[in-house]
Amino acid sequence: MAEVTAMDRLARRTAEGLKLADSELRGRMSSKAAPLIEQLSAHLIEAGGKRVRPALTLAAAELCGGGGAGVAKMAAAVEFVHTATLLHDDVVDESALRRGRPSANILYGNKPSVLVGDFLFARSFQLMVEAGSMEALRILADASATIAEGEVMQLSTANNLSTTEAQHLAVIRAKTAALFSAATETGAVLAGASPEKREALRIYGDRLGIAFQMADDALDYGGQTRKLGKNAGDDFREGKVTGPVMVAFARAASEDEREFWRRTIEKKRQEPEDFGHALTLLTRHGAVRETIARARLWGEEAKTALEIFPPSELRGILADLVDYCVERAA
Amino acid sequence: MAEVTAMDRLARRTAEGLKLADSELRGRMSSKAAPLIEQLSAHLIEAGGKRVRPALTLAAAELCGGGGAGVAKMAAAVEFVHTATLLHDDVVDESALRRGRPSANILYGNKPSVLVGDFLFARSFQLMVEAGSMEALRILADASATIAEGEVMQLSTANNLSTTEAQHLAVIRAKTAALFSAATETGAVLAGASPEKREALRIYGDRLGIAFQMADDALDYGGQTRKLGKNAGDDFREGKVTGPVMVAFARAASEDEREFWRRTIEKKRQEPEDFGHALTLLTRHGAVRETIARARLWGEEAKTALEIFPPSELRGILADLVDYCVERAA
Repeated sequence: MAEVTAMDRLARRTAEGLKLADSELRGRMSSKAAPLIEQLSAHLIEAGGKRVRPALTLAAAELCGGGGAGVAKMAAAVEFVHTATLLHDDVVDESALRRGRPSANILYGNKPSVLVGDFLFARSFQLMVEAGSMEALRILADASATIAEGEVMQLSTANNLSTTEAQHLAVIRAKTAALFSAATETGAVLAGASPEKREALRIYGDRLGIAFQMADDALDYGGQTRKLGKNAGDDFREGKVTGPVMVAFARAASEDEREFWRRTIEKKRQEPEDFGHALTLLTRHGAVRETIARARLWGEEAKTALEIFPPSELRGILADLVDYCVERAA
Repeated sequence: MAEVTAMDRLARRTAEGLKLADSELRGRMSSKAAPLIEQLSAHLIEAGGKRVRPALTLAAAELCGGGGAGVAKMAAAVEFVHTATLLHDDVVDESALRRGRPSANILYGNKPSVLVGDFLFARSFQLMVEAGSMEALRILADASATIAEGEVMQLSTANNLSTTEAQHLAVIRAKTAALFSAATETGAVLAGASPEKREALRIYGDRLGIAFQMADDALDYGGQTRKLGKNAGDDFREGKVTGPVMVAFARAASEDEREFWRRTIEKKRQEPEDFGHALTLLTRHGAVRETIARARLWGEEAKTALEIFPPSELRGILADLVDYCVERAA
């Protein structure tokens, strides 16, 4: 029997709300005027994804006493922002194959990907308006601006081995954690949470998002145990300066090693055997292990933030979710 | 002495609000974290533009008794939506030179253009939140979705000579008129206008937007008097099926003529002398004149919509603005 993960438990616990959110997503991704919009949106939205962000909005609201009918709409809005970001990422990364499957920009072209991303982004704001909370709307509008800022920052840190730890963290926080924390904070706001609970859930989302992205970066090198999945090597091939590479470059034992990273990451001149050599260097310097250790530290802060809430099954699930996000890479 | 146009008079009349809106635009287009955002935004925003959309928001609010501090923010939000759209249009149109100048995608690349567009779009929603009206926010969110729909529709009508009049009008209405009508309707909403006045201003913006776009399409072929400006020929070279081409194709006197349009517009196989021949055919069939005549009809509806308001200098300016938008092509 397959293991029941914290993500499975979260999905079950928020199943009712997720079903409502999904029906919003499906209803809003269509356009009578432009059928291409639905085809392209469906490619991403029906491909599934774990719906972790909308589940977080629903869980945060429930933890604060429930937020009524608006919560499912806000959860759907959060997922639409995520989907719009993915569409534009595909275009910006120029990835022919992304995560082992043809990306929307390959199947439908860059133009529809840009425009349908804009459409879904606009749809997300329509949903927020229906959710009816100006404060929640402000949070998600702020997060949307921050995500775009993070993506622009990433343009200047990509292929740049002199990226500092602080810059790297700022990028992760903006491009990934901002939406996680907006997901949890808007749930709290819709439930009319106290300022303390709202702040606790904002911090939980922020720290979880950072841990999630760091673990993701580790997984792109097969994680600690080199379970090479379908994602492995994408970051390396794109020359992305992520946690594992930063650690390995900082700990490089020779000019040869540094030169290897400069050639493969900065100049993006790669030979077929380079990814294997990169894995060897990462292992030699414990770079993936170190990245996961850092993810774990951020994850601990996420769990600590939850302690303002009395113990409950849902609080337990959210705490376990942190471990699930980090330990999948360990 | 240069002629004082209705646009000049509108700008003067709304100068105070436009100055506030401009200061919002300048303040919000920067990002400490990502300086590239400001450089790229400034390229478009400081290049000027007539600020016709924010001026319309300010004028609509004033016509309904004034809307307080929120109006300038909403006007800035409208302009940011417009700017974001321009940035993404540049990418989608793959235009190396657009309107005689290097476009942002050429100067800075496609990636920053997509991402900074996203950033400005998010910024526009932050401004709307500050403007404080959920109803105005709903209008502009709806318009944003409609604009994206219109752009996607245009992908399927571009280079397609079997585009129907109805499809063509739907594209114009979505990609251009939706933002004009959102500009005027939000101004009315912020001023607490009656439903009748609000609807009148929505209709005014819609009809003005349609007339504006039709005149723009005529201008791209030098207008009725062939005053060939810096824009002339762009639509032809891109194979866009706009009003003048639709009329000329429908009125084509021979299979040769139809074949000319199929080759240049549908197949985009163009020789240097083709634009000149296109102009000859347009003149022969009165295609530009017909396009302007249609623009004028929509413009008349815009002016009629204003009659719900008592005569005033501002009402006069808005009526004259319709003529200005249409007659610049005549």
